[in-house]
Amino acid sequence: MVGPNTPLLDTVNYPADLRKLKPTQLRQFADELRTEVIDAVGQTGGHLGSGLGVVELTAAIHYVFNTPEDRLIWDVGHQCYPHKIITGRRDRIRTLRQGGGLSGFTKRSESEYDPFGAAHSSTSISAALGFAVANKMAGKPGKAIAVIGDGAMSAGMAYEAMNNAAAAGNRLVVILNDNDMSIAPPVGGLSGYLARLVSSSEYLGLRKFASKVTAKLSRRLHGATEKAEEYARGMAMGGTLFEELGFYYVGPIDGHNMDQLIPVLENVRDNAQGPVLIHCVTEKGKGYKFAEESADKYHGVAKFDVISGKQDKGPGGGPPAYQNVFGETLAKLADTDPRICAITAAMPSGTGVDKFAKAHPDKAFDVGIAEQHGVTFAAGLAAQGMRPFCAIYSTFLQRAYDQVVHDVAIQNLPVRFAIDRAGLVGADGATHAGSFDVTYLATLPNMVVMSPADEAELVHMTYTAAEYDDGPIAFRYPRGNGTGVALPEVPEKLEIGKGRLVRQGTKVAILSLGTRLQEALKAADKLEAKGLSATVADLRFVKPLDDELIRKLLITHEVAVTVEEAAVGGLGAHVLTMASDEGLTDAGLKIRTMRLPDMFQDQDKPELQYAEAGLDADGIVETVLKALRHNSTSVEQGARA
Amino acid sequence: MVGPNTPLLDTVNYPADLRKLKPTQLRQFADELRTEVIDAVGQTGGHLGSGLGVVELTAAIHYVFNTPEDRLIWDVGHQCYPHKIITGRRDRIRTLRQGGGLSGFTKRSESEYDPFGAAHSSTSISAALGFAVANKMAGKPGKAIAVIGDGAMSAGMAYEAMNNAAAAGNRLVVILNDNDMSIAPPVGGLSGYLARLVSSSEYLGLRKFASKVTAKLSRRLHGATEKAEEYARGMAMGGTLFEELGFYYVGPIDGHNMDQLIPVLENVRDNAQGPVLIHCVTEKGKGYKFAEESADKYHGVAKFDVISGKQDKGPGGGPPAYQNVFGETLAKLADTDPRICAITAAMPSGTGVDKFAKAHPDKAFDVGIAEQHGVTFAAGLAAQGMRPFCAIYSTFLQRAYDQVVHDVAIQNLPVRFAIDRAGLVGADGATHAGSFDVTYLATLPNMVVMSPADEAELVHMTYTAAEYDDGPIAFRYPRGNGTGVALPEVPEKLEIGKGRLVRQGTKVAILSLGTRLQEALKAADKLEAKGLSATVADLRFVKPLDDELIRKLLITHEVAVTVEEAAVGGLGAHVLTMASDEGLTDAGLKIRTMRLPDMFQDQDKPELQYAEAGLDADGIVETVLKALRHNSTSVEQGARA
Repeated sequence: MVGPNTPLLDTVNYPADLRKLKPTQLRQFADELRTEVIDAVGQTGGHLGSGLGVVELTAAIHYVFNTPEDRLIWDVGHQCYPHKIITGRRDRIRTLRQGGGLSGFTKRSESEYDPFGAAHSSTSISAALGFAVANKMAGKPGKAIAVIGDGAMSAGMAYEAMNNAAAAGNRLVVILNDNDMSIAPPVGGLSGYLARLVSSSEYLGLRKFASKVTAKLSRRLHGATEKAEEYARGMAMGGTLFEELGFYYVGPIDGHNMDQLIPVLENVRDNAQGPVLIHCVTEKGKGYKFAEESADKYHGVAKFDVISGKQDKGPGGGPPAYQNVFGETLAKLADTDPRICAITAAMPSGTGVDKFAKAHPDKAFDVGIAEQHGVTFAAGLAAQGMRPFCAIYSTFLQRAYDQVVHDVAIQNLPVRFAIDRAGLVGADGATHAGSFDVTYLATLPNMVVMSPADEAELVHMTYTAAEYDDGPIAFRYPRGNGTGVALPEVPEKLEIGKGRLVRQGTKVAILSLGTRLQEALKAADKLEAKGLSATVADLRFVKPLDDELIRKLLITHEVAVTVEEAAVGGLGAHVLTMASDEGLTDAGLKIRTMRLPDMFQDQDKPELQYAEAGLDADGIVETVLKALRHNSTSVEQGARA
Repeated sequence: MVGPNTPLLDTVNYPADLRKLKPTQLRQFADELRTEVIDAVGQTGGHLGSGLGVVELTAAIHYVFNTPEDRLIWDVGHQCYPHKIITGRRDRIRTLRQGGGLSGFTKRSESEYDPFGAAHSSTSISAALGFAVANKMAGKPGKAIAVIGDGAMSAGMAYEAMNNAAAAGNRLVVILNDNDMSIAPPVGGLSGYLARLVSSSEYLGLRKFASKVTAKLSRRLHGATEKAEEYARGMAMGGTLFEELGFYYVGPIDGHNMDQLIPVLENVRDNAQGPVLIHCVTEKGKGYKFAEESADKYHGVAKFDVISGKQDKGPGGGPPAYQNVFGETLAKLADTDPRICAITAAMPSGTGVDKFAKAHPDKAFDVGIAEQHGVTFAAGLAAQGMRPFCAIYSTFLQRAYDQVVHDVAIQNLPVRFAIDRAGLVGADGATHAGSFDVTYLATLPNMVVMSPADEAELVHMTYTAAEYDDGPIAFRYPRGNGTGVALPEVPEKLEIGKGRLVRQGTKVAILSLGTRLQEALKAADKLEAKGLSATVADLRFVKPLDDELIRKLLITHEVAVTVEEAAVGGLGAHVLTMASDEGLTDAGLKIRTMRLPDMFQDQDKPELQYAEAGLDADGIVETVLKALRHNSTSVEQGARA
């Protein structure tokens, strides 16, 4: 397959090549770069809209700044495909998000042009400050440039960093990439503020007189006598909020117009007297009509046909996604329970809260990228008698850990945590994996932690959580689609801390938490075929544990194996702790805990990731057989020797 | 002992009583309330300066608003002593911070006037939004009032909440208690902004014409025809930052002047059309000259003599505090290593970073109450070749958990975490206990986690962390003073993942992590006295574990006990996981894990808290004896029956 025709881009492997181009060639260069991005993502799928929005910005930054010595940090990082193409990775750009291929985000191990990896939002200003201050302390000249979206600006972390920007002096440049959109449309006061800045008459005036203004800036650049501070502020049309936090505010400027971008960046590079915030207006999906016309601007896409824009979404018609089962179940429950409400942190569709919001718009709250606020807001709602559900991905709930501990668990408030993307997540890789929630939640007093084995169980657990008013309760479930089981007409209220026996055997006990149950059952069949009779339990709860069931399984089977899609410290640790507390290990207990390995697993197909982790049927069988073969006496004697 | 003479205060047990007073009596009432606070804290010790700063505000809020139906939420909560006195708890105010007594913070279980507990900073606006929105959904009239300090405003969480304030409509009132100080002087852009607002001529004018302005507001209150919106904004002298985030800004007003406070609060109560922020200027320590004159405004004090202001700080001259050993060691190391730098989040003195900053002012960074930024800032510094130490209390590091995972651990960046206040913390109670860090850190790939057994070990670990460039490394140590061991002249670089044998015995093995080592040694003596020869190991590392040492101890002793000042999922869980992975439990292993109990422990003397947790010498002995007595066969048969 032949790629697009890109004569200028073909001359550029690294930013140093780009800097050999004349300014007048940059427009064509950007067009070619955009074409290449569209073609590549058409083949791989991935994040498209964000990258298309920053094609000109990417080219302009690398043209003006001395990367990699100047440190360029992309917030979130899913807009970095054009950046990867011109920083030595064009030859691998069609391996994006695939096993062994390029990451869909920036990644330190990939390139010196990725000084700081990302994937979670709103970290870039803090990181850039670190680079800038380190250079300042070492007397090195390098600058640090953070590019951050308007949606990411709603996170408290970005504000904390801005509040500290003065520490960086003039080595810090923040480019606010304002496309009035993150994954979903942005929310909150800041969003309205930015919109007012952009829609003000001064901005319209600037657009009109762009060439004049930039000409003036350029002249000043080459031989001005006025204070540089005045230059940088010369374009300021507002931005008081940023100025009050210590920035020089420049903008808004048109982020697709090279004639504005280049002189402004050069001016900031050469004349800034302190931290500068450049307010840059862009359009997500820019330059690809199907993306521009789409509601989500092709934020994340499957492989697609470049000519028709048609995405290859597979056959469809399979089992529903877990997120939608959750959202629809909650909507139904709220039909008869006015206390139920739902909170999402800028992920209405990813969490299924959009389904709930459609039915109960007044009971759904999108707080923006603000997990900390979202959790404590939910705690306040619960304290006033509501039944709030916080629907947050496992990996993003890490952002609100202190709020879970301090505002929810210590006060024993009945906040319900619907934790999506628990376990491994495929193409998004290590940064999005939900590996630690079982450990970091089950260690907390008062917390109930459960995990459904399939989508029917998810219905039951959603209902169980709604009805549970005694304290906080969490249920975690994976990315992707259910197993295809029938959904219950009437949800069942589960008994807290009670598991269920799914298959009765005699020799081997598999204690499963969550959706690995299917693999556990397959493993039981395989063991049976080898003459090893296997029991399988779905524990449902990791906290409180079903002590009675677990005790019985441990002492009536020759070997017991716990299975969970979570890191060390979770189910396995709690079962072992209970077993040693009770003295069950004293006389001998053959027990093994299967969990995620002690490493951050890179992106790949989920089934391959689970195979790598050993958490599939074959892995379970292997663990059981190895345990059965294991002769502890010889090991002990070996160790004693 | 006779308390101060407080005739008006004596008539007030609850806010309803307060509301019977005439406005002209409130000045005297506030004076009496202040006297009572000073007298009580003189007897108990505790947080004094913050409470003295809000005496008038406390009286005014309860006078104007209909608490407890209107929900009053004190941010952090350490300024709540005057609030407790007038909400039914005066009779117990001299039990503050003692075992069985009143909490030093707001607490839901204490009173309906404490609708939301606190202790960590910056949660109040989010919680208040929850109350306000719940009322809105239920059609109830109650308002929610958050009182938050200017220091707390630097945390991202407060910004996230402000950005969402519109959701609450006019049920939300935020009172910014601006005393230009948190525990330490505030830092960052916001602080400068607030100072400019306060020092502006308009503010001076307002002070001068306070009576005139308030008279005008009062008139409007009773029979105005203009739009209420105009009233609320009538006093706005600035505050654009808050206005841009969606608030009506009112202020600055004098927070000690009842003639300003009452009419402004009444006006806001009756006429607000949306969320209002009242910028209130107060003086920390107000009205007690020794507090006013002190650099820290008597933020936290020991018992003191009211007449002389002299604090009863005990005999002194004992072993140094862990925090100071850390700070001084780091300062020394930095004398010869220019890469070392230190980050604190508004706790320079509590973390010992003040000692470091004194020697290396350019290498010390106080980022304000901004743990999230602090950690990722450190990650940026590390990525640019520095050797940053993040000195953060265990409980506050929870605020930055996602940054530890996403920005540090996944990227394997050598950020050093100096984690103070690990374990139980005495008078500050459950909200400040450092219970979960071992669990939430040791579950992370790439992370090294250690804990010193005494202050000499802390010196070694500080040095070991400085020299370790292979990835993140954390060391946790408790609140309070060391054990009195001699500090090493030359710090030792410890081998990563290696423990040490402290005492060799034969029958019982005690595997200790951290400063419980002293109790483990006492327990060993007690066991020896009973004829049970005991080995004691200081494991030093929970990740990576010293597999070799642990394996040997487990299989060569009749019973093994792990001891740690941490919740479930920590050392005990990791040792058990390793033992089951290796099949050591297969043929029988008598092992018990001692850890913090599955509950949030209230404030008390630390030694009593550890006794309650069973984590003292007697508790260890009891656990060992019980394990030795335990006949596993009978239990199994019992369970089988």
